[in-house]
Amino acid sequence: MTGMLESYAAGSWFRADDEGRPVRDATTGEEVARISSTGLDLGAMVQHARTVGGPALRSLTFHERAGLLKAMAKDLTAHKDELYELSYATGATRRDSAVDIDGGIGTVFSIASKGTRAMPNDTVYLDGDTERLGRTGSFVGQHLYTSRPGVAVQINAFNFPVWGMLEKLAPAFLAGAPTIVKPAAPTAYLAEAVVRRIIDSGLLPEGTLQLLCGSPHGLLDELTVQDHVSFTGSAHTAGLLRTHPSVLGGGVELTVEADSLNCSILGPDVTSDAPELDLFVKGVVTEMTVKAGQKCTAIRRVIVPRHAMDTVAEAITARLARTTVGNPRSEDVRMGALVSLDQREEVRKAIQSLRASSEIVFGDPDRSDVIDADAERGAFLSPVLLRAADGAAEPHDVEAFGPVSTLIAYDDVAHAVALAARGRGSLAGSLVTHDADVAREVVLGLAPWHGRILVLDRDDAPESTGHGSPLPVLVHGGPGRAGGGEELGGIRGVLHHMQRTAIQASPDMLTAITGRWTTGSARREDGMHPFRKSLADLRIGDTIASEPRAVTLADIDHFAEFTGDRFYAHTDPEAAARNPLFGGIVAHGYLVVSLAAGLFVDPAPGPVLANFGVDNLRFLTPVKADDSIAVTLTVKQITPRTSADYGEVRWDAVVTNDAGESVATYDVLTLVSKE
Amino acid sequence: MTGMLESYAAGSWFRADDEGRPVRDATTGEEVARISSTGLDLGAMVQHARTVGGPALRSLTFHERAGLLKAMAKDLTAHKDELYELSYATGATRRDSAVDIDGGIGTVFSIASKGTRAMPNDTVYLDGDTERLGRTGSFVGQHLYTSRPGVAVQINAFNFPVWGMLEKLAPAFLAGAPTIVKPAAPTAYLAEAVVRRIIDSGLLPEGTLQLLCGSPHGLLDELTVQDHVSFTGSAHTAGLLRTHPSVLGGGVELTVEADSLNCSILGPDVTSDAPELDLFVKGVVTEMTVKAGQKCTAIRRVIVPRHAMDTVAEAITARLARTTVGNPRSEDVRMGALVSLDQREEVRKAIQSLRASSEIVFGDPDRSDVIDADAERGAFLSPVLLRAADGAAEPHDVEAFGPVSTLIAYDDVAHAVALAARGRGSLAGSLVTHDADVAREVVLGLAPWHGRILVLDRDDAPESTGHGSPLPVLVHGGPGRAGGGEELGGIRGVLHHMQRTAIQASPDMLTAITGRWTTGSARREDGMHPFRKSLADLRIGDTIASEPRAVTLADIDHFAEFTGDRFYAHTDPEAAARNPLFGGIVAHGYLVVSLAAGLFVDPAPGPVLANFGVDNLRFLTPVKADDSIAVTLTVKQITPRTSADYGEVRWDAVVTNDAGESVATYDVLTLVSKE
Repeated sequence: MTGMLESYAAGSWFRADDEGRPVRDATTGEEVARISSTGLDLGAMVQHARTVGGPALRSLTFHERAGLLKAMAKDLTAHKDELYELSYATGATRRDSAVDIDGGIGTVFSIASKGTRAMPNDTVYLDGDTERLGRTGSFVGQHLYTSRPGVAVQINAFNFPVWGMLEKLAPAFLAGAPTIVKPAAPTAYLAEAVVRRIIDSGLLPEGTLQLLCGSPHGLLDELTVQDHVSFTGSAHTAGLLRTHPSVLGGGVELTVEADSLNCSILGPDVTSDAPELDLFVKGVVTEMTVKAGQKCTAIRRVIVPRHAMDTVAEAITARLARTTVGNPRSEDVRMGALVSLDQREEVRKAIQSLRASSEIVFGDPDRSDVIDADAERGAFLSPVLLRAADGAAEPHDVEAFGPVSTLIAYDDVAHAVALAARGRGSLAGSLVTHDADVAREVVLGLAPWHGRILVLDRDDAPESTGHGSPLPVLVHGGPGRAGGGEELGGIRGVLHHMQRTAIQASPDMLTAITGRWTTGSARREDGMHPFRKSLADLRIGDTIASEPRAVTLADIDHFAEFTGDRFYAHTDPEAAARNPLFGGIVAHGYLVVSLAAGLFVDPAPGPVLANFGVDNLRFLTPVKADDSIAVTLTVKQITPRTSADYGEVRWDAVVTNDAGESVATYDVLTLVSKE
Repeated sequence: MTGMLESYAAGSWFRADDEGRPVRDATTGEEVARISSTGLDLGAMVQHARTVGGPALRSLTFHERAGLLKAMAKDLTAHKDELYELSYATGATRRDSAVDIDGGIGTVFSIASKGTRAMPNDTVYLDGDTERLGRTGSFVGQHLYTSRPGVAVQINAFNFPVWGMLEKLAPAFLAGAPTIVKPAAPTAYLAEAVVRRIIDSGLLPEGTLQLLCGSPHGLLDELTVQDHVSFTGSAHTAGLLRTHPSVLGGGVELTVEADSLNCSILGPDVTSDAPELDLFVKGVVTEMTVKAGQKCTAIRRVIVPRHAMDTVAEAITARLARTTVGNPRSEDVRMGALVSLDQREEVRKAIQSLRASSEIVFGDPDRSDVIDADAERGAFLSPVLLRAADGAAEPHDVEAFGPVSTLIAYDDVAHAVALAARGRGSLAGSLVTHDADVAREVVLGLAPWHGRILVLDRDDAPESTGHGSPLPVLVHGGPGRAGGGEELGGIRGVLHHMQRTAIQASPDMLTAITGRWTTGSARREDGMHPFRKSLADLRIGDTIASEPRAVTLADIDHFAEFTGDRFYAHTDPEAAARNPLFGGIVAHGYLVVSLAAGLFVDPAPGPVLANFGVDNLRFLTPVKADDSIAVTLTVKQITPRTSADYGEVRWDAVVTNDAGESVATYDVLTLVSKE
């Protein structure tokens, strides 16, 4: 590939007709492609997303969107060899590319899975419980999330062209927001290949994914309230975005994920023969060398007990000395090139700044032994380990975005936490310790400064994914210097793209708006037991109200004998009388719900396949001997499963006594056939 | 009171020694007080909050903080007459003051109550479920919220000096953030009186509440990462705050709640004889006249079906004609004064702008009949109702922050939603309809543009709190023009002050860090049944692992007969064999949990008082006849109740079969005596 990268805009591929700028292979310096957006109609792209992609996407349920994401991830998996091949040009080894490509695809699978399991098969997401706002329950409140009728603009960094794009695209898509993705120029050819594959697959509705290769100048001018910009990159560029009029006063939401000076702390408990020492050293070296240290989560500050400093410095040095640098296509090479010669210059300058208060322990920023490559034409840099003087400021301020870390000594745990905080906010931190007290103190001290913290020890090491890896089920982002944004975290990152609104209404209206039955709204009894209705026939509000049944002392005695639950409140009148909550014999809670099932179940074979669970069971009023109970069971929520011939039905269950008091409330979860 | 308002700074009251600026009575124009912060050491205030207030506050649990808030609210209730008396000077009638003073105190009670019921008796709040991150469960993830070691600066608007302060103070306090409150000058004397009362009560730890009366110039320069600024006021001032270096690049979090052009929509279904018409008209008039329309949630745009326009205009006009304006101290007066003559000038200018495309239907901006007051010296303004020409732009852009609303006609529901959206984001919207389909369509259309939506009809009207009232259990804030912030909403507003962090660790470490037992971490069996231990003796991880018990076909038969639950999967071998999930007779889920209780319960009287509920019960593997089951019950979480001699213990329950498979998992909730 040596041609002009194309943008995918408003339904077709666009190629600029000027010369563009060259994009070069990190290892060889040869031109890989050219890039330009000259002549691209950015306003038309935004309009296309708003009028074509958005409406198409929001007409699908969360489960349908999740299904498309899953299909997309499968399709990319089938074509990933092509992506791996292209990825070498970015300077990435095969191991580096796995983080980017397999990591990116895996993230889409994970988010799709969460969309199916943690969101309803609907277009509205309910947040929290219904709040009763008045005495009688005729006025209630419910928070819900709806999709914004806007555009998600995603401005990505150069270091993870695949993961960086997919981890933003998938949550936005699930949230109902059409995406315009703007990859960083140095690795845009890889992002372009991914988008081309997705577009060619025809899986995503037209207009839900567009690609902008080249300058995005003017794009933000097209945005307004309901639009969202997610940016990953430097604090400098983030600052420019923050002062754009569309963001300052135009209501455009901006999420920033900026590089940060992440730390890893070795616990004071770790002795030189503990397995944690080796885990710590390996972790630091991995973070320095994977992607040649070009990771926003990489460890920049290695915070070590003063007494262990020499040991740690020697161990890291020994490992770094074995790290081979060179052509990432070579099997003998452990660490590839930085993304560009410009980037190497930046890193060298940062190392120079760090040297004001730190000495180099390992590596030479100006030369490196290189395997199977030309050290001058490729953007190679030796790993560089520094050691800070006491009180040094630079390690907490200067970021060398490459294979560079600085050792810093601490005196006690409070000192370690204070040093970590000097980074002014980080994406990820880690602590290597096998001492639970150290873990609690350090983690709670670090937490306000971090989006993610790894606690590593001999127990979790075999399964640990390491300091530097964001996981789709956990939030990614951090306060302060890290940009203050938050992405991923299962559906947390989806909800960030949606608007939370408090709805106040009567129960009937709330049921109509949310599609979930609300306590106090109308119940429907049409003469047919709802257990006889298939998923297709069941309606929200369908109800079976049982006849009453007496609960006798004999029932309670018998249940105690039968189950073995002879708790004194059920069996010993005198002792039960002394119980401050009961004042006499009461029925077992489990007896009440067992009898309630006997009252509402329709026994013959039918659409109801199984009871798979119970949620939020609360025993509100004790049932005494000879009380009568009755149960009312109402269809609360219906969730067809896309990939099965049945779905989930959540029933509202209320057990009442003779006096009409609620004895127990809970949700019954069943599987019901679609037909 | 005519002296200089004081600030409460770094532990003592500070009085500026310059002349200051006068603050005047809205009705009489007389000087109420003077205000100045000249000479106040803002850096010392921030430092005091950080080093004295913050640590004191964060050493308390959420429940302890909630208890102090409740005590504070009680103390303010006992002194509210003084506040009501002062409040007249702001131009507020007694009814207006109730919204501000009782509304504010009620908000503190509500937040305190949520803090006790929805947060643990701890200093860390866990968010969502534990995520398994590896195959074996030795590496797990958990999101948690921790308090930021920073300062909450609260810059309030003039219109609700009490509510506006308390609704920000209470969530910040609960979150562990010490507050510096900066009231708006025109009504600062009322805020000062509240703070003085709180400080005099001695209830809150020193340094957790400071007051800045006068200019806050320079305050933001003192702030950094971990600090939070909450601002309520104009979009103009919000814009200045957004470009402050501490916010742009310094990591200070800024939450904005700005006035917005809120709308109320009359449904197309509402006929002239429907009760909803009257509800709509009353709602509009109330929002125009309460606080003389100086509410950020007031209805500025009255969106009405074209065919109903004349009827609505006449009905609103008739009601407005009966609205008496004048001295708020007079019982005959329905609407008091605007806060100041300057403010009246602003509103008159805005009305002038609106008149470019709207005609006045009721009211004269230049004169009003006034009761018991001097119309020249007091900031009185007649209510003004306008009616917009088709396609008018100004009603969607120009805010008259006073008793001013504009009627706008719509053609169909989609048109109404589109008109509402032209406000570019609002705090609150309302819809008056008795048609469920209209409600769903309009509400889901409005939701992305709103923080809160009221659906009003004959059913909820008797309990409705109205369009303009934020409620502590519901979020307050809105997208776009409304500032993009979010406050209140129960503990949602508390969590906005805290940092969410994803923790990755082994189960044992996670248990140590969170104080909640994590699946996979160590269980403790010390020979004593945990039901024999008081809350003081129980430890996280205390476990009872039962002996196994066989579940026979006779047990299943018997349970079916006894409870009446004769569902075919438990009683009919052939039919059960055809069930796709079971393939034969299975035990009732309720039988399994009943027998499990029989296995884990220790029957004799002791510290365990009651089982009050079950959470997250899932039946994972069917139990067939002659399977054996055993149960393991482990202390998961201990929550002492501050105001009772018992607390809540949450137990992790796992029922397993002979093959070691999990049959059922759930949480058992019990009350256990402290001693």
